[in-house]
Amino acid sequence: MRDVSIIGIGQTPVGEHWEKSLRQLAYEALAGAMRDANLERADALYVGNMLSGEISGQAHLGALVADFAGLHGIEAVKVEAACASAAAAFRQAYIGVASGLQDIGIAVGVEKMTDDVGSKVTTGLAGAADADYEVIHGISFVALNALLMQRYMYEYKLDREAFAGFAVNAHANGAGNPNAMFRRPISHETFMRAGVVADPITLLDASPMADGAAAVILCPTEQAREFTDNAVRVKGSAVATDTLSVHDRRDPLWLQAAEDSSRRAYRQAGVGPADIDFFELHDAFTIMSALSLESNGFAERGKGTWLARDGEIGLDGKIPVTTRGGLKARGHPVGATGLYQIVEAVQQLRTEAGENQVKNARLGMTQNIGGSGATIITHIFERLEQ
Amino acid sequence: MRDVSIIGIGQTPVGEHWEKSLRQLAYEALAGAMRDANLERADALYVGNMLSGEISGQAHLGALVADFAGLHGIEAVKVEAACASAAAAFRQAYIGVASGLQDIGIAVGVEKMTDDVGSKVTTGLAGAADADYEVIHGISFVALNALLMQRYMYEYKLDREAFAGFAVNAHANGAGNPNAMFRRPISHETFMRAGVVADPITLLDASPMADGAAAVILCPTEQAREFTDNAVRVKGSAVATDTLSVHDRRDPLWLQAAEDSSRRAYRQAGVGPADIDFFELHDAFTIMSALSLESNGFAERGKGTWLARDGEIGLDGKIPVTTRGGLKARGHPVGATGLYQIVEAVQQLRTEAGENQVKNARLGMTQNIGGSGATIITHIFERLEQ
Repeated sequence: MRDVSIIGIGQTPVGEHWEKSLRQLAYEALAGAMRDANLERADALYVGNMLSGEISGQAHLGALVADFAGLHGIEAVKVEAACASAAAAFRQAYIGVASGLQDIGIAVGVEKMTDDVGSKVTTGLAGAADADYEVIHGISFVALNALLMQRYMYEYKLDREAFAGFAVNAHANGAGNPNAMFRRPISHETFMRAGVVADPITLLDASPMADGAAAVILCPTEQAREFTDNAVRVKGSAVATDTLSVHDRRDPLWLQAAEDSSRRAYRQAGVGPADIDFFELHDAFTIMSALSLESNGFAERGKGTWLARDGEIGLDGKIPVTTRGGLKARGHPVGATGLYQIVEAVQQLRTEAGENQVKNARLGMTQNIGGSGATIITHIFERLEQ
Repeated sequence: MRDVSIIGIGQTPVGEHWEKSLRQLAYEALAGAMRDANLERADALYVGNMLSGEISGQAHLGALVADFAGLHGIEAVKVEAACASAAAAFRQAYIGVASGLQDIGIAVGVEKMTDDVGSKVTTGLAGAADADYEVIHGISFVALNALLMQRYMYEYKLDREAFAGFAVNAHANGAGNPNAMFRRPISHETFMRAGVVADPITLLDASPMADGAAAVILCPTEQAREFTDNAVRVKGSAVATDTLSVHDRRDPLWLQAAEDSSRRAYRQAGVGPADIDFFELHDAFTIMSALSLESNGFAERGKGTWLARDGEIGLDGKIPVTTRGGLKARGHPVGATGLYQIVEAVQQLRTEAGENQVKNARLGMTQNIGGSGATIITHIFERLEQ
């Protein structure tokens, strides 16, 4: 296995791109990453996407994006793992380069959700859960997360105010990210007044549907300096799965696949949670932020929200999270999110995060979650010293 | 890169499985392959599927199948490349094992199409073509292939009778395959009398929609003998893409991605078309059989149908094709087909193909096509000498 580094990143702003097609969004992110790496060719393309079949009547995104991007004849394929599709695409690109089979690999995540005029997005997203045993009872994806949040509040004797810090932090950071969907900070009071979506989840606990695309270029670390002097090394990479249905889990308040995948990634990187300088976690809902901090070893069980309360998740805190707005404020174009997280981690490690910069960031972690924890993909990145 | 071999195969019969869910079908194939390899664990699972989101409201098949198969916590992901999804899943499993990252990899392809009560299958399959530039004009997937066949007949001055041999051969071989959907031979006369679907494609030029699942287990060749004494080596593996839209091709009657992927696979294997003992080609429509034989070097341009006319595609011919019925008679559960082809190639190389056995088969080739040639995946397999 070869050591692998990221040599280029690209992204579109996250938002409502009614005037742009799937292929245009993917191309913009991909072309940005190619320019960033000063490259015009590649050996393989992995596309992350969840909903193009349902929403746009378009499958076969590997060939579609390769064709439109002028990468004629290239090996290309789509990878899907619900909301973790983009990190899954990154993982396959990583394996391809690490194997020695491909020298230049591209991972692009793309999703176009906002020009759906019916309920296709809601039913499509429900497909991340178990269609035969969960969705058939009428539960939507947000309702599943509401049950988890309800249970968490009951078990640890908390009210919903305990989750405010996650949303306030995400929106504060989103204000500094030119590609974020929401760029206005919110106050604690605004969080408390937000309308309920699925009790106890309110509008400000939930990440927004969005359109967007993000891309990265990978190559063997030993070749990275031919292309750039600010390459970022993939130091740990792991995927773990758990039961698809939440009701099948021994403890629904523990993300076993987060523990498993981060354990493997920590081991590969030779580090532990205390070494991580920032953590791009998967805050699809505020409850997921709390569970993620606990299951990955950043907080004790039941105390994930304490880090938010105590200001430890801010840019100068003990473990900064969602440093460029997270799913909550940057937006959550599901099949692209995992690559937005990775692009943002690279920005931090290159010291290109502007007013969101985490000082002396050397090691960053990203975690992309599919379903309510059924697929969890963890990556650890390190700045290559000049 | 490590050398990789197949140590287990499994499949369900192809047909209408209204009483079985997606996960049950996938599990049956996977469990069969695990028993065949005498294994109870694995390191990674790659699931090929195209239409589960549209038809069954279920995404996230990596986690779903891993969970249901009792492979708790395993790395798992879905791979999609339209009708080439299963060979794409196999390719990723192959890369994972070749890289050294995974020792035991599973690829399973599964599709459930026949309990759709509306037009979801037709619109879903159209997603293999270009939604924005082809499908928007009302063209279906069969209509696209009809245009290709029309053009072929005009260009090479043939009538539809020239294609009869492909269907007759497929159905003759399907009769000997206990897992085939159609097990009755057809005559030349029956072919000529078949009703038109999209002129000039008739019912007997087109492969049937179906439900089914097929699976294989991969491991490094140097470990293969620990599990089995009839391992089959992956001697060549390649993916190539072409324009998604047929109208963008310089020559619509040439499968450039077939030429590209088979050239790479031949080179990796150190062989040429004359060395191949049988060829599991992608006969979604009879026109695809003719184009495949030409683009992969088995026939001169415009003379693909001559091999069928002259009996050279039969089990004792120069280049036996669709030896267990092919897409036409075994059936075409789209996201599973590529793995049925590979399972059947392994059966031939293990001398387990019963009355369909190709004598002295040592080298077999499979080719799975997504869309009308936009993704083409070629594999070459070799029997490991005892």
